[in-house]
Amino acid sequence: MSDPAQLVMSRINALAQISEDTGRLTRTFGSMAMLRANELVGSWMREAGMMVRQDAVGNLIGHYPAATPGRKILLLGSHLDTVRDAGKFDGPLGVLTAIACVQTLNGKKLRLPFAIEVVGFADEEGARFQSTYLGSRALAGTFDPADLKRADAKGISMAQAIRDFGGDAEAIGTAKLDTGRLLGYAEVHIEQGPVLEQEHCAVGVVTAIAGQSRIKVTFTGEAGHAGTVPMNLRHDALCAASEFVLAVEAFAQNRGGLVATVGEISVSPGASNVIPGQVHHSLDVRHADDAVRQRACDELKTRADEIATERGVTMNWELVHQTSAVLCDRRLTKALNDAVNRHQKVVPLLMSGAGHDAVVMSAVTPVTMLFVRCKGGISHHPAESVTTDDVRIAIAVMNDFLQELASAT
Amino acid sequence: MSDPAQLVMSRINALAQISEDTGRLTRTFGSMAMLRANELVGSWMREAGMMVRQDAVGNLIGHYPAATPGRKILLLGSHLDTVRDAGKFDGPLGVLTAIACVQTLNGKKLRLPFAIEVVGFADEEGARFQSTYLGSRALAGTFDPADLKRADAKGISMAQAIRDFGGDAEAIGTAKLDTGRLLGYAEVHIEQGPVLEQEHCAVGVVTAIAGQSRIKVTFTGEAGHAGTVPMNLRHDALCAASEFVLAVEAFAQNRGGLVATVGEISVSPGASNVIPGQVHHSLDVRHADDAVRQRACDELKTRADEIATERGVTMNWELVHQTSAVLCDRRLTKALNDAVNRHQKVVPLLMSGAGHDAVVMSAVTPVTMLFVRCKGGISHHPAESVTTDDVRIAIAVMNDFLQELASAT
Repeated sequence: MSDPAQLVMSRINALAQISEDTGRLTRTFGSMAMLRANELVGSWMREAGMMVRQDAVGNLIGHYPAATPGRKILLLGSHLDTVRDAGKFDGPLGVLTAIACVQTLNGKKLRLPFAIEVVGFADEEGARFQSTYLGSRALAGTFDPADLKRADAKGISMAQAIRDFGGDAEAIGTAKLDTGRLLGYAEVHIEQGPVLEQEHCAVGVVTAIAGQSRIKVTFTGEAGHAGTVPMNLRHDALCAASEFVLAVEAFAQNRGGLVATVGEISVSPGASNVIPGQVHHSLDVRHADDAVRQRACDELKTRADEIATERGVTMNWELVHQTSAVLCDRRLTKALNDAVNRHQKVVPLLMSGAGHDAVVMSAVTPVTMLFVRCKGGISHHPAESVTTDDVRIAIAVMNDFLQELASAT
Repeated sequence: MSDPAQLVMSRINALAQISEDTGRLTRTFGSMAMLRANELVGSWMREAGMMVRQDAVGNLIGHYPAATPGRKILLLGSHLDTVRDAGKFDGPLGVLTAIACVQTLNGKKLRLPFAIEVVGFADEEGARFQSTYLGSRALAGTFDPADLKRADAKGISMAQAIRDFGGDAEAIGTAKLDTGRLLGYAEVHIEQGPVLEQEHCAVGVVTAIAGQSRIKVTFTGEAGHAGTVPMNLRHDALCAASEFVLAVEAFAQNRGGLVATVGEISVSPGASNVIPGQVHHSLDVRHADDAVRQRACDELKTRADEIATERGVTMNWELVHQTSAVLCDRRLTKALNDAVNRHQKVVPLLMSGAGHDAVVMSAVTPVTMLFVRCKGGISHHPAESVTTDDVRIAIAVMNDFLQELASAT
């Protein structure tokens, strides 16, 4: 296949066959599906002339040497894990376009004045342990060892999952990159929103990534028989949670740029003839301005408390995860902007509502991101769709971006 | 142990140790815990002078012969299955007080002019397959073979569960009792409500059992990324379901005697960073007047449709299970009433908000029920509590009830 865009598309399709669920795409951190995905993507990295390693946490890294040894390293890539019942582009698109760029260089026997490392991050979505960016945190040296005690839905600890995967939970410190050698991190990703489609553009440049708070909310009422406890004597935890879910929705609808989502909910005891005694649910809050997000969380917590008090139930609020908004690096983003300019009449500048590994990497190296148009703005869903033509433009932009950096280095 | 009430309490405690969950009491239809429960209760039946059999669906039946062969049969009993995280009295109290009555007769070498069969029903709660009364339906000959295809949460079919249990799904027809020989069915059960406690009475007589409808409601919206889909473009299935849960609560609060409960809910895809695309939840509606209940279901369905339309999602309404209200038999209930009268100054007459196997048995034989006071009206919860003194009164009442019937036969 001489067209790199078609090759990327066929590889994305092949990768989408590797799943831990039957009939839908799910690859969570530390699963056997991730192991097989790393093996397959590793083989493509080697084919593109890279030396391949897997670090202690499970990141897959391909190294393409610089023209002369000891030079700086530019990181490219994205993540190989997915949400449950995922689309096939979210993550893999960034890893496979990066491999395509390296394959093009290697085909021409070209070395740049910096090494390139293509990373397939082990956990960006956090679908298994509800704690995201495990892969990039390990590379950035900001992995929190306390996370190793988190358990998945089956009660398996993260430490155990890492061991099952062939990693080494005790040696995660060794995965940290020599950050002094890093030139930057550039990630290609589907937009996961509707803006590029509306503006009829294949790609756009990200200027900032929204900060996010992820909270675990618990309402505890009183279980009881669904047939015998009169309505006025109930302390139904699900009714309390339902009132809060609607309060969250109404709150976010009235604040520009704020998004807030309850995506997971579980009821205990969980039988049709038992009044819910306890409900756990997630809450995801995002905004480009950290102060706005923080204020929103405070107000929502107050509202949850009010609902609990009115209903004679208790409420517990646990901040599980929080990231600040991140500004992309001006110099790298300028280079990306110039590259886009050669392939598109306008260069849309976008705010990312989704978090990315670039958020974590920004703590140790300059970051930039290129977004690729996706159909209907749909992602985290099997209907996720990107065209081969848009992928071709993304690869061309990244090739030019590498040349821009090479000339400037 | 010479006190039958203390013996019943110690047996209830022993039975509560038999669970399929660690650290909480759960015994669902066809589980290995049910098999062990049947073995233990069967040994107590034999000790009380009964011949013991287990039928094709898994009901445990102890037979205590009449004074002369070929006479009619009085059924006593209750169920041995439980909800998840159950209390220990709901079900076992009725089976073990019945065994205590037979044990007293057998100790005195007394036979009555009718045989007694003590039944431990295999499935009253429906916790595993969401379809209740499997045990009594088999005895009454109203078991629906289509139910055999239902699957539990792990995908195991009911037919398979019955086979695993040592039963015979194809032979359930053989479990049907010779209904021409039945004298009636009398069940002792905890009240599961607060009335007896408020009236300071150990026991009360049930005059009717409320009818119930159990519905599976599904809202289908559109999954999407929690960070990138603006609030005004969402079709969040959980927000729709939450609105309906609150509508159900408000509706029931405004209708006297109606109870309506959403006890189970599940979200798909079910990740904290994904907008819910689909929600399934249960709905349980009960009232002593079938017309009121039916009208309530119709109005709630209309409300669910309205919510779905307003939110641009779809709604599906599936009636899973329905029972009509049941009046207890006048003659049996009079005998029970007279027996209670000898042990208590007043005889509270109660309406049961909970369903019972008596509902199904009423199709083939006269039924009556005795309720026993429970602390705080709490049931379907580990805090379920009944005193030894109240159990002693219940046993005395049932002994007298048997003598009343014997004199009248």
